[in-house]
Amino acid sequence: MEPIRVVQMGLGAVGCGIAQTAIGRSKLQIVGAVDVDPAKIGSDLGEILGNNRPIGIPVAASLRDVLDSQPVDVVLQATGSHIPDVAGQLMDIAAAGCHVVSTCEELAYPWLRYPALAREIDAKARDCGVTILGTGVNPGFIMDTLVLVATAVCSDVRRIKSTRVVAARERRLALQQKIGSGMEEAEFRQLAAQGAIGHVGLRESFHLIAAGLGWKIAEPQETIAPVCATERITTGDFDIAPGQVAGIYQTLQGASHGRELVLELTMSMAAAESKDSILIKANPPIHLEVVGGTHGDQATWSILANMAPRVVEATPGLLTMLDVGLPRALG
Amino acid sequence: MEPIRVVQMGLGAVGCGIAQTAIGRSKLQIVGAVDVDPAKIGSDLGEILGNNRPIGIPVAASLRDVLDSQPVDVVLQATGSHIPDVAGQLMDIAAAGCHVVSTCEELAYPWLRYPALAREIDAKARDCGVTILGTGVNPGFIMDTLVLVATAVCSDVRRIKSTRVVAARERRLALQQKIGSGMEEAEFRQLAAQGAIGHVGLRESFHLIAAGLGWKIAEPQETIAPVCATERITTGDFDIAPGQVAGIYQTLQGASHGRELVLELTMSMAAAESKDSILIKANPPIHLEVVGGTHGDQATWSILANMAPRVVEATPGLLTMLDVGLPRALG
Repeated sequence: MEPIRVVQMGLGAVGCGIAQTAIGRSKLQIVGAVDVDPAKIGSDLGEILGNNRPIGIPVAASLRDVLDSQPVDVVLQATGSHIPDVAGQLMDIAAAGCHVVSTCEELAYPWLRYPALAREIDAKARDCGVTILGTGVNPGFIMDTLVLVATAVCSDVRRIKSTRVVAARERRLALQQKIGSGMEEAEFRQLAAQGAIGHVGLRESFHLIAAGLGWKIAEPQETIAPVCATERITTGDFDIAPGQVAGIYQTLQGASHGRELVLELTMSMAAAESKDSILIKANPPIHLEVVGGTHGDQATWSILANMAPRVVEATPGLLTMLDVGLPRALG
Repeated sequence: MEPIRVVQMGLGAVGCGIAQTAIGRSKLQIVGAVDVDPAKIGSDLGEILGNNRPIGIPVAASLRDVLDSQPVDVVLQATGSHIPDVAGQLMDIAAAGCHVVSTCEELAYPWLRYPALAREIDAKARDCGVTILGTGVNPGFIMDTLVLVATAVCSDVRRIKSTRVVAARERRLALQQKIGSGMEEAEFRQLAAQGAIGHVGLRESFHLIAAGLGWKIAEPQETIAPVCATERITTGDFDIAPGQVAGIYQTLQGASHGRELVLELTMSMAAAESKDSILIKANPPIHLEVVGGTHGDQATWSILANMAPRVVEATPGLLTMLDVGLPRALG
């Protein structure tokens, strides 16, 4: 089988991780990289990735520039979390006849927040015969796809609780900052009230599960609260005093017709260990744990690369993880 | 959406469990039941299931008898573990234009033991525009499909170990007998040497994983050994003395090109607790556990019913869990 020709679009921390992961896979051939940063354009991708040798792929300013010299099967997009920010790019990529696997969190279940825009992207993808998929570790896998798959051996599912605990000390500075590390509690609460802090994607996971099970749940209830340090937490980047914010505790809960779905996400510098767990009240009940958790960065890089064959094989359109076959490693 | 019209074929213990599970689901409508036992034919299905009232479905002697009075979308087949034993039925069901979800263990990955017969069934299914799928809890889910899905966030998978421990005391008498409970060790070893004892399906799980990851592994090495009781085990049906057989320990192991796949199944009256676990050496590593295990009977009944919409939506042919979309509960 010929390798799938992929282009990495977006060379921030996540995009670089995806590109590095794709380079190592024999079933993929990375044929280009695109970024908007003038400082990166023209540089060799290997150099941008901090590898010790060039790989002969200069960073291009646009996908069009890559397509001038060779065909491309799949674009791995890591350029934004919000659909309106990436919609124009998606339309252009579809018009160029390339499939897309995207890290855009809102794209994991695009039909809720942006139904009109989602229909527009879907129509374009169908017209152009390409598949567009949003995925990642969360949303995209650990709090939604894996939860759904765990229900495959269940009947009469009455309650699902998915809990993710991320020990933020193991993660990148960007994540540590995103969760409010070192803030005063009042500041955190003010930002939360404004919707200016919090994980993007919990709502998408919720609706992906509900759609997968055919549950009609009205708008779920969301809570966002700070996790405050109970003792001093000192790292290279932070010195968090007791009482200051060490992380975030975010939940979504909804119920309908005697069925309940609860998602609970903790990302905290105070958490000693990462862990993912899924509790399903059903016949039979299922209690699944990912011991030590699922490392967010590496997992996202991997699933982006792993889904490339799935979008090539899927039917055209703007799809979700429900519609692209059995997710699995490239092997 | 109209409910999917299903027929239960085979009313042994497993078939009855599937039928009972299907009856409880609003997305399915059980429209018929078929068995070869003259004592069951003509009886009401509700009565066969031990329900306290008839449900107006007389057990038929053949699918043809059911089809005389109404259309059928999917046949849930629970009539045998070996492909040669069920192949004739599958050809007939396909000819009648019905999709199939089957408990036949060897059908979970039919391409290895019976490639010619599998091609014949596949051709018939394609000709007739129907989908045929073998699944169940094991093979079909816990030691293969779930393992594959767990790799979706992994790159550079180097080793996979899937371990299933079944505390046989929690299970049906048929399973307790199947694993040799109460036998003398020598008798067990003799039967094992003849291939007359052991779980059917471990090999199918192995090759399903290998196929899903595109791993070319030559014939794996199999071991089957008795688990001998270290203390007296007394249940309503068994009185197992120390040294006598309390269960089975069966493994399959294969490696190729630096990748290793190990499946390890223990089913034992001596096991205190059921547990499933999946260990993946990769980037990131994944350690998944199903705490308390996955109850085999209920899980098989459920996944058979749950896969009905998946075979309706899939492309025609003899497919595996790799090809029928994201497995999940009916909701």
